[in-house]
Amino acid sequence: MTSVYDIAKRAKNASIKALKLSSYVKNKALLSVADLLEKNKDKILNANKLDLENAKEMLDAGSLSQSAFNRLKLDENKLRDMIQGVKDTVNLEDPVNKILWAKDIAEGMTLKKVSCPIGVIGVIFEARPDVISQISTLAIKSSNAVILKGGTEAIETNKIIFSIIREALSSVENFPVDMINLIFSREDVKAMLDLDNYINLIIPRGSNALVKYIKSNTKIPVLGHADGICHIYIDEYADIQKVLNICVDSKCQYPSACNSVETILINKNIIDDTYQLLLDKLSQNDVIVKVDKFLYSISSNVQEAQAEDWKTEYGEKLVSIKVVNSVDDAIEHINTFGSGHTDCIITENQENAEKFMTYVDSAGVYMNASTRFADGFRYGFGAEVGISTNKTHARGPVGLEGLTIYKYKLYGNGDIVDDFSTGKRHFNK
Amino acid sequence: MTSVYDIAKRAKNASIKALKLSSYVKNKALLSVADLLEKNKDKILNANKLDLENAKEMLDAGSLSQSAFNRLKLDENKLRDMIQGVKDTVNLEDPVNKILWAKDIAEGMTLKKVSCPIGVIGVIFEARPDVISQISTLAIKSSNAVILKGGTEAIETNKIIFSIIREALSSVENFPVDMINLIFSREDVKAMLDLDNYINLIIPRGSNALVKYIKSNTKIPVLGHADGICHIYIDEYADIQKVLNICVDSKCQYPSACNSVETILINKNIIDDTYQLLLDKLSQNDVIVKVDKFLYSISSNVQEAQAEDWKTEYGEKLVSIKVVNSVDDAIEHINTFGSGHTDCIITENQENAEKFMTYVDSAGVYMNASTRFADGFRYGFGAEVGISTNKTHARGPVGLEGLTIYKYKLYGNGDIVDDFSTGKRHFNK
Repeated sequence: MTSVYDIAKRAKNASIKALKLSSYVKNKALLSVADLLEKNKDKILNANKLDLENAKEMLDAGSLSQSAFNRLKLDENKLRDMIQGVKDTVNLEDPVNKILWAKDIAEGMTLKKVSCPIGVIGVIFEARPDVISQISTLAIKSSNAVILKGGTEAIETNKIIFSIIREALSSVENFPVDMINLIFSREDVKAMLDLDNYINLIIPRGSNALVKYIKSNTKIPVLGHADGICHIYIDEYADIQKVLNICVDSKCQYPSACNSVETILINKNIIDDTYQLLLDKLSQNDVIVKVDKFLYSISSNVQEAQAEDWKTEYGEKLVSIKVVNSVDDAIEHINTFGSGHTDCIITENQENAEKFMTYVDSAGVYMNASTRFADGFRYGFGAEVGISTNKTHARGPVGLEGLTIYKYKLYGNGDIVDDFSTGKRHFNK
Repeated sequence: MTSVYDIAKRAKNASIKALKLSSYVKNKALLSVADLLEKNKDKILNANKLDLENAKEMLDAGSLSQSAFNRLKLDENKLRDMIQGVKDTVNLEDPVNKILWAKDIAEGMTLKKVSCPIGVIGVIFEARPDVISQISTLAIKSSNAVILKGGTEAIETNKIIFSIIREALSSVENFPVDMINLIFSREDVKAMLDLDNYINLIIPRGSNALVKYIKSNTKIPVLGHADGICHIYIDEYADIQKVLNICVDSKCQYPSACNSVETILINKNIIDDTYQLLLDKLSQNDVIVKVDKFLYSISSNVQEAQAEDWKTEYGEKLVSIKVVNSVDDAIEHINTFGSGHTDCIITENQENAEKFMTYVDSAGVYMNASTRFADGFRYGFGAEVGISTNKTHARGPVGLEGLTIYKYKLYGNGDIVDDFSTGKRHFNK
């Protein structure tokens, strides 16, 4: 079996060849992938059945959750969506070889800042078997090589999809097939994290624990988000209908998503008008509510929140509510306990909104909109690599652009620095 | 003495307050810093004398190099340049609160991508005492908090400049003075590397060993460059006059700079026309030359290069020369042995130039220009944080923009995702 080191070396070589891929060739490759996936639907579904059989045993033994089992399942619809996802990428703008900026820095000297791929990207993801096709597609479109590590539960599905993608790429003349690679075990991941000479970026898409483990064990830059602890602050100038709609949507529209709300902060001056209505509405939607000491003393049918609650990502129909004195208090709570993901103020007061949106140090700061909008497709990026709570490189929903960096191309005519330092020549202003 | 933990906490608080700083207030603060540095010139020069006295002992004992000693010295001219540097920053464009992109994602919903500061940045630099003023200035202009650790040799100079900057900032009403912080020991640096909850970016400006140590010992993203192993490839279609000028400038204009050239690759087809002229020119400029086996067999007055030479940053008037068969060979050599810093092709052939500039995977790829142009000021950025060989966040010379990231601001009117997933509403194309 090929070692991770050899795979990484090949991936790096392929990433250099990929620097010259035209949009035309890349789109041709993508269509070839979509076509071969289409032709091999049955093979894929059969492989998925094998995975599901194994997973069923784990489910029965209690070592796999029902939701993980559900995510693993690939049916005709999901497969069709997966293939359509590959085709849709063809229509997106090529993110590389774009001139981002250009300047004549001196007479006869042109400097161009040009977007280019990052190089080799390691992506570690969970059981969902459509991710392998999605990430491969984005890698091809952005001219990056990837080394993929999927969830072990999906191993048969991943293997077959991987081999179909490689076969499809082989059919495109001179295409650097080693752009797409698959590794299998935790030991492989461990080995990958040491290869900072070959791998330029790691994207972990998984649990908080996974992301922390990776950040602690590699010199390679890591792009990802740990927690998604999102807040809604109900300002004293909030419209009650917006409060009810946004709170329910932010919690219930998809409770296990990272952009669903954890904590609702409510301004003390509007408790009388808002709190009971909100409780009723949440309860109608089967949301369990935990509240701070004060609210607990005036409520029934709620639990009392503990210190841990303010820093917990629930991932289910559970929300905590806390009273705050002002927008400043709300900002301070969010900057202390939040994870810098997505936070919303509900208010009709523009000044409070701007204050909140300036001082809350999060990737997404919203006025009167559900936190669930934090998503690359909803933002109009056409594709999403993931959501980042990093404060370098890329933040928030990351589209194809997040898989690029730039280089500076300088076109001269024999120019030397000495002429400038001796004052013979001058840089343009 | 305040612990690094407390300093980092205060810096984080200050960084939140800094989110609201207007360009006007920041520029006022910068002018106040320049003014107070001006008024305290003598104090600074006296402190520098103390450092120089201590450094002289180290120099005599052989524990400090002459060049490090020279860099430590602050004279009237350097001090004037340093203060002018602070003033010049006032005229640069404010890099934060710029709307980078905006879109109405659906009717009544506006999404804005707005530049903002990174937060808290740790900067570790060597003995040059003007760096503390330069980095503080850039931090103020970009609304970031910084924790600075200077070279121990410059401790007295750094302390006095630091206290003057803090005093100047205190005179500006409500200015978050804790944006600028100084720490002192290696233990402090070690402690800082653990504080990933408070510090968002580390910029090491120092030796290769320092950068590697830092990358291996922190979860915090690191921006910097390890080696600066730069190449010039002399193509078979090179103009000889350009060859001689560019090679000499790239090596001799400032040999200890990271953007000076290490290895010259020469196309085999033009050895007869070029090689001896180049050797003569380099020798006239006191450059020691090491050459590959073949060239060694046909030359005199040169040394034979060893395997190590192709991956060594010389930092002095020393250059290695190697024969290559083609532009492809040159590209492969550079991508194998280079450090992704700055590499140049000398040619009159546009096709070879484009090939070189596409496939060489470096921050700067030049056609017919000295590698010494790789510099933020020469690129017209007005300021330079450093040069990055990272392939994420910022690459090449990094100006103020490299100290920023962005957030997404979404302005809605009570909008919920459920309306879109049920098909009641649609996103704009």
